[in-house]
Amino acid sequence: MTVSPISDRLADVESAVADGRTKIDWAYEHMPILQSLRADFEAEQPFAGLTIGMALHVEAKTAALVETLAAGGAEVAITGCNPLSTHDDVSAALDAHEAITSYAEHGVDETGYYDAIEAVIAHEPDITVDDGGDLVFRIHEEHPELIDSIIGGSEETTTGVHRLRSMDADDALDYPVFAVNDTPMKRLFDNVHGTGEASLSSIAMTTNLSWAGKTVVVGGFGQCGRGVARKAAGQNASVVVTEVDPRRALEAHMEGYEVLPMAEAAKKGDVFITTTGNRDVITPEHVQHMQDGVILANAGHFDVEIDLDGLADLAVEQRAVRDGVREYKLEDGRRINVLAEGRLVNLATPVSLGHPVEVMDQSFGIQAVAVRELATNGDAYDAGVHEVPDALDREVATIKLEAEDIQIDELTDEQAAYLDSWSQGT
Amino acid sequence: MTVSPISDRLADVESAVADGRTKIDWAYEHMPILQSLRADFEAEQPFAGLTIGMALHVEAKTAALVETLAAGGAEVAITGCNPLSTHDDVSAALDAHEAITSYAEHGVDETGYYDAIEAVIAHEPDITVDDGGDLVFRIHEEHPELIDSIIGGSEETTTGVHRLRSMDADDALDYPVFAVNDTPMKRLFDNVHGTGEASLSSIAMTTNLSWAGKTVVVGGFGQCGRGVARKAAGQNASVVVTEVDPRRALEAHMEGYEVLPMAEAAKKGDVFITTTGNRDVITPEHVQHMQDGVILANAGHFDVEIDLDGLADLAVEQRAVRDGVREYKLEDGRRINVLAEGRLVNLATPVSLGHPVEVMDQSFGIQAVAVRELATNGDAYDAGVHEVPDALDREVATIKLEAEDIQIDELTDEQAAYLDSWSQGT
Amino acid sequence: MTVSPISDRLADVESAVADGRTKIDWAYEHMPILQSLRADFEAEQPFAGLTIGMALHVEAKTAALVETLAAGGAEVAITGCNPLSTHDDVSAALDAHEAITSYAEHGVDETGYYDAIEAVIAHEPDITVDDGGDLVFRIHEEHPELIDSIIGGSEETTTGVHRLRSMDADDALDYPVFAVNDTPMKRLFDNVHGTGEASLSSIAMTTNLSWAGKTVVVGGFGQCGRGVARKAAGQNASVVVTEVDPRRALEAHMEGYEVLPMAEAAKKGDVFITTTGNRDVITPEHVQHMQDGVILANAGHFDVEIDLDGLADLAVEQRAVRDGVREYKLEDGRRINVLAEGRLVNLATPVSLGHPVEVMDQSFGIQAVAVRELATNGDAYDAGVHEVPDALDREVATIKLEAEDIQIDELTDEQAAYLDSWSQGT
Amino acid sequence: MTVSPISDRLADVESAVADGRTKIDWAYEHMPILQSLRADFEAEQPFAGLTIGMALHVEAKTAALVETLAAGGAEVAITGCNPLSTHDDVSAALDAHEAITSYAEHGVDETGYYDAIEAVIAHEPDITVDDGGDLVFRIHEEHPELIDSIIGGSEETTTGVHRLRSMDADDALDYPVFAVNDTPMKRLFDNVHGTGEASLSSIAMTTNLSWAGKTVVVGGFGQCGRGVARKAAGQNASVVVTEVDPRRALEAHMEGYEVLPMAEAAKKGDVFITTTGNRDVITPEHVQHMQDGVILANAGHFDVEIDLDGLADLAVEQRAVRDGVREYKLEDGRRINVLAEGRLVNLATPVSLGHPVEVMDQSFGIQAVAVRELATNGDAYDAGVHEVPDALDREVATIKLEAEDIQIDELTDEQAAYLDSWSQGT
Repeated sequence: MTVSPISDRLADVESAVADGRTKIDWAYEHMPILQSLRADFEAEQPFAGLTIGMALHVEAKTAALVETLAAGGAEVAITGCNPLSTHDDVSAALDAHEAITSYAEHGVDETGYYDAIEAVIAHEPDITVDDGGDLVFRIHEEHPELIDSIIGGSEETTTGVHRLRSMDADDALDYPVFAVNDTPMKRLFDNVHGTGEASLSSIAMTTNLSWAGKTVVVGGFGQCGRGVARKAAGQNASVVVTEVDPRRALEAHMEGYEVLPMAEAAKKGDVFITTTGNRDVITPEHVQHMQDGVILANAGHFDVEIDLDGLADLAVEQRAVRDGVREYKLEDGRRINVLAEGRLVNLATPVSLGHPVEVMDQSFGIQAVAVRELATNGDAYDAGVHEVPDALDREVATIKLEAEDIQIDELTDEQAAYLDSWSQGT
Repeated sequence: MTVSPISDRLADVESAVADGRTKIDWAYEHMPILQSLRADFEAEQPFAGLTIGMALHVEAKTAALVETLAAGGAEVAITGCNPLSTHDDVSAALDAHEAITSYAEHGVDETGYYDAIEAVIAHEPDITVDDGGDLVFRIHEEHPELIDSIIGGSEETTTGVHRLRSMDADDALDYPVFAVNDTPMKRLFDNVHGTGEASLSSIAMTTNLSWAGKTVVVGGFGQCGRGVARKAAGQNASVVVTEVDPRRALEAHMEGYEVLPMAEAAKKGDVFITTTGNRDVITPEHVQHMQDGVILANAGHFDVEIDLDGLADLAVEQRAVRDGVREYKLEDGRRINVLAEGRLVNLATPVSLGHPVEVMDQSFGIQAVAVRELATNGDAYDAGVHEVPDALDREVATIKLEAEDIQIDELTDEQAAYLDSWSQGT
Repeated sequence: MTVSPISDRLADVESAVADGRTKIDWAYEHMPILQSLRADFEAEQPFAGLTIGMALHVEAKTAALVETLAAGGAEVAITGCNPLSTHDDVSAALDAHEAITSYAEHGVDETGYYDAIEAVIAHEPDITVDDGGDLVFRIHEEHPELIDSIIGGSEETTTGVHRLRSMDADDALDYPVFAVNDTPMKRLFDNVHGTGEASLSSIAMTTNLSWAGKTVVVGGFGQCGRGVARKAAGQNASVVVTEVDPRRALEAHMEGYEVLPMAEAAKKGDVFITTTGNRDVITPEHVQHMQDGVILANAGHFDVEIDLDGLADLAVEQRAVRDGVREYKLEDGRRINVLAEGRLVNLATPVSLGHPVEVMDQSFGIQAVAVRELATNGDAYDAGVHEVPDALDREVATIKLEAEDIQIDELTDEQAAYLDSWSQGT
Repeated sequence: MTVSPISDRLADVESAVADGRTKIDWAYEHMPILQSLRADFEAEQPFAGLTIGMALHVEAKTAALVETLAAGGAEVAITGCNPLSTHDDVSAALDAHEAITSYAEHGVDETGYYDAIEAVIAHEPDITVDDGGDLVFRIHEEHPELIDSIIGGSEETTTGVHRLRSMDADDALDYPVFAVNDTPMKRLFDNVHGTGEASLSSIAMTTNLSWAGKTVVVGGFGQCGRGVARKAAGQNASVVVTEVDPRRALEAHMEGYEVLPMAEAAKKGDVFITTTGNRDVITPEHVQHMQDGVILANAGHFDVEIDLDGLADLAVEQRAVRDGVREYKLEDGRRINVLAEGRLVNLATPVSLGHPVEVMDQSFGIQAVAVRELATNGDAYDAGVHEVPDALDREVATIKLEAEDIQIDELTDEQAAYLDSWSQGT
């Protein structure tokens, strides 16, 4: 039940630290927003005297955030938010930092996982940073006495925010938590560019197939679907979109994409990519219309977008035909190839590297300023789920522009007055 | 003061009616949404017994709307909303319809203009349809006794809605008016595709210049700016974006466009297109940096986006060098070419044809269902400005999809339940 | 039979010269290649003592070439190459130049046209510049005694080059002529960018229709077809390509376009644009499958690409429905709209302005260096049709780069040696 | 010196055959051209009685070709063309075919490599298929007595063709060899789409970086450069092109790309991709201008495009920072990251899979018909290097269209006559 830091558990700590350091440095080298914030934090020490408890995927990009918070004066205690996503070398490199204690270890069992959560909580954090909400939930359930001294928290994911809103609706969330997931900066770039690009690269590098001349069916035309469609068209694929919403369908049509019901699209597609956030986007009924050798991948959400159980029932045979590709053979001999077992194809194939570095730079940039907001202005927020203030989201945009050395114009007083006269009436 | 219909005032009515009919038929041939609605209206007669008063640009596309309302059983009285935008032949063709009386005449003076407004009001309309709000204002000011019997109105433009909201804020708007301008269907397609495409075509056909290899500076990255940028890049121009908003600037950067302050962009641009909805986007200070022979055009808003007075002060000479092009010669000999006197380049050059037909089909489709909503369900709306209900906006999207013979999927019960469980918490 | 210069025939010469000057200045302002060459020619006077006879479309862009040759010391005599393409004001402005005599007049009859050709020949040109070959043919037929003193000529068009090659094959071409039409610089930019952009702009400004969401069928995937397809896709049209060549068809497929036989494409298209250089690309059989309201346009070649006679036979009624649009009504009521009477849509609609200025700058830049080559190195060429030497084509590319202030790298000696070792074997 | 087939040398042949079979089946499933040709060959047995000797990269895609030739009646003996590219399981699966003997084994030393070549030659092939020319050279040097009975050969690569042309120039090539590398079908799709897409995917999956908003400098605007530029722009990168040829530079400019000398591009780029086929495209002088953290990759040719020796001299430290990424640290701390040690990034990173399957389908389709041409019409070819007849290249295009179920039009007699009248003169 008492868990010691990762460094106590590794055979060759020095080597692990060196490997982890190389990985972290690579990510940080390409994270201009965190670089800029770290410089500010080093100068201003906004977290001096505060302890931050974190439960996130402990890999290189996250580590760049952790070290950025530490640079701002925080004591950090961290563990993983998923037993399989921890890189032990990164965990060791973090633990080697004098202001950071890392408990994350790859592949621990459920007991070990929650022991590590407890170990973080034992640091009595002033601020919590979660990916999935485990710290918040555990503290509310097991350590309510700590809540009074907690300034607030932030939450990275849709799922976590969803759970926190449920708590909040039941009046059961007793400190303020920022919903980092919902910010424009995160949603727009992550979904359109991050998911779009990484999904296509992952599919190409898993299958050894190319895009030019392929018919790519994109299930759903939300932010992710738009990203996948644009990036696929940008590789000279012919894009077909399916939708359930008439306005989105019309938007897709006006972009120049073909819009079809899935049952029709099924006949034309070479590659199918679901992005809906819903279940059963591709069902056995659709599969019945598909050509031999098609590729099915999910870039939207959980592994329910493709009805794999239904597909398994339909198939007379299943087998792994490549790393990351499962073939379902139908009675008439057609082969249906499912990537990454229907899980997110940009994250879950053997070659996937998780979200691109720049995407996480933006996302973690918002985390960093959200934590700074708690540290410097936490009193302003009541218990409950809060949107990240728009000014913070815009601040991160500004930092990124400056990091990229991009200047923009400013409204003159006359221009501001002119706009004002419009928006407020004469 | 008593105005008679246009037909009483034309020398050769028959020929005018024939010419107007040809123009209207061309537009209507390419307006599938109005075609579909007209078929419904003919069957259902939603406007039977109602009089509709209208003040819109009386040209071919508008006429297709007017005849669609008449087909639904309405008596229509119409006049123009701008003395210069009326096509007399279209006006005559409308007036030839037994259920329509048109008072619109090109080039009338202010007295004639308001007399015609009065003539429309004299029909005691049950519903008003405005472009700029003149009918609503006149009725409130001069004929308040009519208000009790008026079901409601609809307003096409930003400017009109702006004025109506001011009235509403003063509790001075005494019947419900739909703000057609603000609907997603209108905003998205009109701005991105309509303004984008028509601006570029108008510039090309006014200047005889091509886009490939040109550096096009787009002032502003709102909906219009995005449209202009995408369409210009789609013609192989190199696009530079200027912005005052860091998040929009970053979006432009992530699209792959160069982002610069206008003072820097001024040095690189061959063509400058403002789309901000603000004033002074291009000022004499910027012009000082420009190359000889640059083209300046406005695709955003009023003729204040380019500071023409400032430019005139800077210039040592001005002259018209082509239809729709005014050259400002600077002291050092450089020539700055302003299109359409800084007014909307997609509407105001000699070759411009107004918005594309399909854009107005969408916009007028919303007008038609908004008027139908008033006719069939007007009691549900209090006095004041109302958003067009989202269901109506989506209905028009659905009609367009059907008209284009595009089928889409429907949510199954299981899918709807799944989404529901997400959005509402477990 | 004796023709006097245009200035002798105009009522108000001064005003015509002023108007023509404005038009020429506009074009020249946007022709950086000619600007650069003119500066060189002024300094070097390569044409001092030479007379150049020209028969070209006498409009503003051509005038910029004529004045550039004059600036290099030439005496120029010019007339039109088509009685309908001459702008009298441009002709007058040229004639006002002391070194230029212009005989071109709009709308002259056949006798007047050939009299003007004779008037140019009477100047006993040392070099001829043709568009269609009339000067060359007339000299060979009627004034063979002049041939000995002629250094050579250049020919702008496909048709002219075609006729000259026939003469050459019969050993009947007695002086060297450069085939300007066939150079890479002309073909690539003119066809892909010039034809592509100008065709789409002309169609949009003739019909008031937009491209987004339209299905555009491009007949042929040669250089023009590629240009039209790319530019249409760049306006968010969905592009369908028809071809007779399997490799080109496959290229179109690999670009992401749908490839269909015309009979199938006919069912899907909203707009059809032929670019094949062949006849009967769209026939009555295809028209039978088309939707009501389709647009047919030709961007390839002569007015035979669309079988208009066949279409006329099929139609029960024909009429002009807009400037530049002829409607053919079929028995079942469907309306087929043909633009510009099937002639080149980028040149022959009422709003068309001919090729974009920059395209002609490139084409006339090659003319200018070809004429300079004759003037300075004419002895090197035997009688017959000659390709423009590749070095001259590249020189024009270099001039354009310099004019646009674009620097490029140079091969180092080591790199040149490395390439050399590859191309010549070890 | 006597080498036995791979199956004699593996511990668990059965398992290797099964693994190899799975890999081959995946590739073949996505190779419609070979599928179509195999069906024909099975019916027609064009290779009945012939022995084909092959030295190619023995991996899954190649195996699909080998089995296609065997299906046409050939006895095949095969070995690798590079000791490191052989997959033993694929080799074993081939060797398990009764008509195929495979000698290829991964990682053999030079002696083993040439022994295997000899083993293939000992089969006394009627036709040779080479990748690099080793079979042809070895036969000419060591076994000239076999040449009389050899019908001919085919060669896959640029390098091989280059060496064969040198032999031919010295009159030392004594049987006909087809230069498969130079065909339009191979060059166009392989370079533009294959290299373009695979290079970008490989870089993304090696670095975990995204493309949106990046400045990508493409060295060279030949076929590969165009492909890389287009695909990068299609992922929302901002593309800068460097060139030494003015016409290509101008083409790039007219596409809308920025064109700069490398010394200037060096200051702006985030990622640099060389595609020139030349050496020293990126030199220490350029590196001096680069930003910290840039990525250098080569997609053109040998590992000389980036001057790695010069970079090593410049660096104060080198180390591997990720699989496939070497960091060169400069004196001032800037880090320059070189991918795949400067070798082809689409082939040589740890995640690279070689050319996409469809690209090799096209390339091997040409190989298959070239071999068929030798088998059925070999007498028609003299000793020496031959272009693959255009009709064969077009045949492969036709097969691909049919496999993709794409129909195209055919010229009518009238159209053929019309074209003919044009190309031959009246």
